[in-house]
Amino acid sequence: MSASQLTATQADLREQYQKLIEAGLALDLTRGKPSPEQLDLSADLLSLPGADVYRDASGTDCRNYGGLTGLPELREIFGELLGVPADNLLAGGNASLEYMHDLVIFGLLHGTPDSATPWAHGPIKFLCPSPGYDRHFSIAESYGIEMIAVPMNPDGPDVAVCAELVAADPQIKGIWCVPTYSNPTGATYSDEVARALVSLPAAAPDFRIFWDNAYAVHTLLEAPPEPIDILGLAADAGHPNRVYLFASTSKITFAGAGVAFFGSSAENLAWYQRHAGVKTIGPDKLNQLRHLRFFGDANGVREHMAKHRALLLPKFALVMEILSDRLGDAKVASWTDPEGGYFVSLDVVDGTARRVIELAKEAGISLTGAGSAFPYKSDPEDRNIRLAPTFPGIEELRSAMDGVATCVLLAAADKLLAEQI
Amino acid sequence: MSASQLTATQADLREQYQKLIEAGLALDLTRGKPSPEQLDLSADLLSLPGADVYRDASGTDCRNYGGLTGLPELREIFGELLGVPADNLLAGGNASLEYMHDLVIFGLLHGTPDSATPWAHGPIKFLCPSPGYDRHFSIAESYGIEMIAVPMNPDGPDVAVCAELVAADPQIKGIWCVPTYSNPTGATYSDEVARALVSLPAAAPDFRIFWDNAYAVHTLLEAPPEPIDILGLAADAGHPNRVYLFASTSKITFAGAGVAFFGSSAENLAWYQRHAGVKTIGPDKLNQLRHLRFFGDANGVREHMAKHRALLLPKFALVMEILSDRLGDAKVASWTDPEGGYFVSLDVVDGTARRVIELAKEAGISLTGAGSAFPYKSDPEDRNIRLAPTFPGIEELRSAMDGVATCVLLAAADKLLAEQI
Repeated sequence: MSASQLTATQADLREQYQKLIEAGLALDLTRGKPSPEQLDLSADLLSLPGADVYRDASGTDCRNYGGLTGLPELREIFGELLGVPADNLLAGGNASLEYMHDLVIFGLLHGTPDSATPWAHGPIKFLCPSPGYDRHFSIAESYGIEMIAVPMNPDGPDVAVCAELVAADPQIKGIWCVPTYSNPTGATYSDEVARALVSLPAAAPDFRIFWDNAYAVHTLLEAPPEPIDILGLAADAGHPNRVYLFASTSKITFAGAGVAFFGSSAENLAWYQRHAGVKTIGPDKLNQLRHLRFFGDANGVREHMAKHRALLLPKFALVMEILSDRLGDAKVASWTDPEGGYFVSLDVVDGTARRVIELAKEAGISLTGAGSAFPYKSDPEDRNIRLAPTFPGIEELRSAMDGVATCVLLAAADKLLAEQI
Repeated sequence: MSASQLTATQADLREQYQKLIEAGLALDLTRGKPSPEQLDLSADLLSLPGADVYRDASGTDCRNYGGLTGLPELREIFGELLGVPADNLLAGGNASLEYMHDLVIFGLLHGTPDSATPWAHGPIKFLCPSPGYDRHFSIAESYGIEMIAVPMNPDGPDVAVCAELVAADPQIKGIWCVPTYSNPTGATYSDEVARALVSLPAAAPDFRIFWDNAYAVHTLLEAPPEPIDILGLAADAGHPNRVYLFASTSKITFAGAGVAFFGSSAENLAWYQRHAGVKTIGPDKLNQLRHLRFFGDANGVREHMAKHRALLLPKFALVMEILSDRLGDAKVASWTDPEGGYFVSLDVVDGTARRVIELAKEAGISLTGAGSAFPYKSDPEDRNIRLAPTFPGIEELRSAMDGVATCVLLAAADKLLAEQI
């Protein structure tokens, strides 16, 4: 495009942006929250477990204290869905993030079964495939754990980069992974990447993979990918304690009132429960019983997820349609087309992501903060924007995405013109 | 008693004990658990909040993420009962123990608003009024916090001893307190003791009172004591950040599925939420809504507690009756006669508590482990036994207490005879 063409385009975009401002929008694409219609799918939970229902199949009174492992039948259901033997899976409270936090804390203050030295006794580091999940990075940052960004590919993190780092540095104690429909790129780890991660020689005897399978069953296809038997692979590779696996029903039933799961080796689970027994007498077993009654079995979960899919497909399709229509020709952006999960990852012209987010904010469209998918919220290219299309209604989403497209184009035109001058 | 009288008594007791063994009991007085009948009082919770009910008064959708403070209306109710402004009270998950653990952890790894140095950077100590609550002591022990036992009087800990220790040693960062119907002695702190604790000059700028008001409304009288305005007293004394207050509905509704509360100064709460925001997006608000609908208001809680009282009074009366009938004349034991809470604290002949617990165990009566009400499970006089009479049915309780009395007398006779020889 010539300078005069660009100037004309910029003028046109400024006019569009002015109209956007005048529309007085108040829209939010910041967080991966289920919509009210999705939450309605679990309405029956509001009256469960029901009058006089408070025992599980083994006869445990779920109202009283106790039971650090969670209900066996619920662990069976999610064990099947996650590819984890139920004996290796705990069911807990309403946030898998708490399990992750516990495991970092216990590592920091107690060490692990593979290294008695508390991590807090020296500087430690975590690998952070980026772009990645901001709440993972927040746990690390909060406790002064140095974060090392590693590239995120369509089949998972760059294993060669990980291998070199982990082999050389005993201070590297962990890596954050979202193996299915990754936050935010939607990438799903291949079997090869999974196998490489559990196999790679690590300088730290207690290097841990935080395997946050948050979107294991959250597919936009007919069926989700077969779960990788990550605990089995790790054991086969001679590193049975390397994997901490997480999941929850937060985006299956109620985001704030679901059940979290933690899977690992028998040795890790015994160690975890010894330390967790200091902070709780057990999780809310009635909420677990409520979920058990609601799902019935693993197929109940699968059928339930098909209803989510029906609500989410039009939203993701609309995002693709608008991005393609508005940005497809201009070649100023690229984006992911996820097969599941909660996000679309949008890469704009280098050096303009922050500006796009500011422009959108001034127009009443809230986007996730610039750089938030990177360690220390620092996107080296100032390029990445995470879009969360699940919560708004379809017409709100249309307005928001159209506005975002305008902001992307305007920021690109401004940048290109400034460079030409 | 002469040696021959003692020998005859011992023979008689051995016969009684033999009969006890032959009865083949399997009874449990170990933990402060509500009985099934008590849990039945909250049966309505099993179907709450009910179809289509998921918003609080402010319109928040309690099904979705968010809301680290908990539901305002529930905080109002328990603020009134606990003597804490609702603005200074958070509502959380199902275990107040988790709040306590969080606060120890955050102190260890982050320091506090009054001292930026993480507690974990050096040795620290907690005062432990003893006998006290074993789970408090477990948190300290788990993280290598040195525990210093201080005497527990009928009106709270010995303040003069606390004052001397705390003034002299900047490593003393905390004290564990159960201010109402204390575990296990049933003692309720006087206003004077409370005022002294918040006022005492401390060498550590961030000395903290862990004020676990677990039994604030759990009275065996017509009404519980007026709650002490401990946050107000602390502010008046110039130590606004000194107090961490805890409570929960675990022994009001369902032991495993209740709601916990944490109260403190505005500065402490802001600090807490900043760090807690790293591990959770918010507590289970639906369970809070469930409780809100169940109670209605503070009077709803008071009326509910009267039903607990009706179930518990006969059990505590029976314990008093049997202890008095069987041990009153022999002068080999003393015990508390609590006006609320969940425990009776029994002191037997010095050096025989462990033996009594062993004898009981052999006869099928489980008692709380020897010394468990003391730091490091070490009862210096081997004298104290915690009795938890709430869970068993009344006839089981009668058999168990009668058996305990036999064991107390037999251990005493054995000890006295051994000393005479």
